[in-house]
Amino acid sequence: MTQPTIPTITAFERSPDGGKGLARDTRVRWALEEAGQAYEVRLVSFAAMKQAAHRALHPFGQVPTYEEGDLVLFESGAIVLHIAQQHEVLLPHDADARARAITWMFAALNTIEPPILDLQTAKILEGDKPWCEQRMPLVKDRIRQRLGELSTRLGDADWLDGAFSVGDLMMVSVLLRLRASGLLDEYPTIAAYVARGEGRPAYQRAFAAQLALNTRKESVPAGNGRA
Amino acid sequence: MTQPTIPTITAFERSPDGGKGLARDTRVRWALEEAGQAYEVRLVSFAAMKQAAHRALHPFGQVPTYEEGDLVLFESGAIVLHIAQQHEVLLPHDADARARAITWMFAALNTIEPPILDLQTAKILEGDKPWCEQRMPLVKDRIRQRLGELSTRLGDADWLDGAFSVGDLMMVSVLLRLRASGLLDEYPTIAAYVARGEGRPAYQRAFAAQLALNTRKESVPAGNGRA
Repeated sequence: MTQPTIPTITAFERSPDGGKGLARDTRVRWALEEAGQAYEVRLVSFAAMKQAAHRALHPFGQVPTYEEGDLVLFESGAIVLHIAQQHEVLLPHDADARARAITWMFAALNTIEPPILDLQTAKILEGDKPWCEQRMPLVKDRIRQRLGELSTRLGDADWLDGAFSVGDLMMVSVLLRLRASGLLDEYPTIAAYVARGEGRPAYQRAFAAQLALNTRKESVPAGNGRA
Repeated sequence: MTQPTIPTITAFERSPDGGKGLARDTRVRWALEEAGQAYEVRLVSFAAMKQAAHRALHPFGQVPTYEEGDLVLFESGAIVLHIAQQHEVLLPHDADARARAITWMFAALNTIEPPILDLQTAKILEGDKPWCEQRMPLVKDRIRQRLGELSTRLGDADWLDGAFSVGDLMMVSVLLRLRASGLLDEYPTIAAYVARGEGRPAYQRAFAAQLALNTRKESVPAGNGRA
């Protein structure tokens, strides 16, 4: 394996969560930390994110992106999978086990995260609508259904399928978005699983790096931030 | 490459769409047809889907699943990626191009599909709620935003990044869910892209296979169907 170029990721100039680690760059930082791969961060303002220069990297005008030489990727799932494959970390060697680890990535992003995104939409984009309060129990119950099923599958295992993998990294990252809602606390098995993920040194370093950026005092010109 | 075992996928005993091809087994059938891989189908009733035997394959009690020897996968994204990797189809050989094709799979499933799932939830699960009509324009506008961005990125290209890939297969499959809403027709570039995907002989075979099952006259005992 040739030594990879130092990759550059993009992150919010100021994350909407103020440094709680819920922006999707944290997932990518976590994977990079697990791989022991140094990286640079370019900060992007909300305004710059929607302009052509950034959209050339990310067609949907979001963060994170990932640049490594000529390669440009977006979508945290794709970036994390690329890092895992390139560094041969977080993925089992056995082909079947590897396919199952990747299955849990997709489960995190396409089965668990959509109802969680609904809750964020309901709070942030529809929080002032007359139906918000009445609708909220339905939105939360759809999340509870998935948490119950995930809890049953996890049982008393530490991780979803053998050793900690990209599937767990993504699942824990997605579930962390629920902390403020209190829903995690309703499922002790899931809460303990998330806590195990957060306890990993690589997660701690990723979290600290985004927190430092989001709580810094000085202003950094958009597009010139370096972490 | 050793000859793979004939895989078995699961599908709805009766798809809720009556054979419009919108159930997620169609994506998997499409990938198998692109790969020229024969497969078997086991039909599962709504009741059986929620029972322990099926949940051992799919912890969230859904279809499709994929069984190949000892390997059991769920999540259409993971299954399609596995098929593409195993058969060396729908993925570019160049490593960077391959990572970009996989990026479009994640974009389909984590950026484009969530607002489309919202629309289905709004219609099916909240169609009788007092807020349904008033809320619908917000739900549709969130989809329109993504379709506009996707249309801009696609431009006058046939496919999202070079040759047809797993990224296009998944994106077209996700977009097809919008046909009944009329939203695709608002974006001629997207409508033409989806039509190109549907025009592929492998898609046609996949669609025909699910249609034949869903419009059959005789009843097939749950768990014993074979296509």
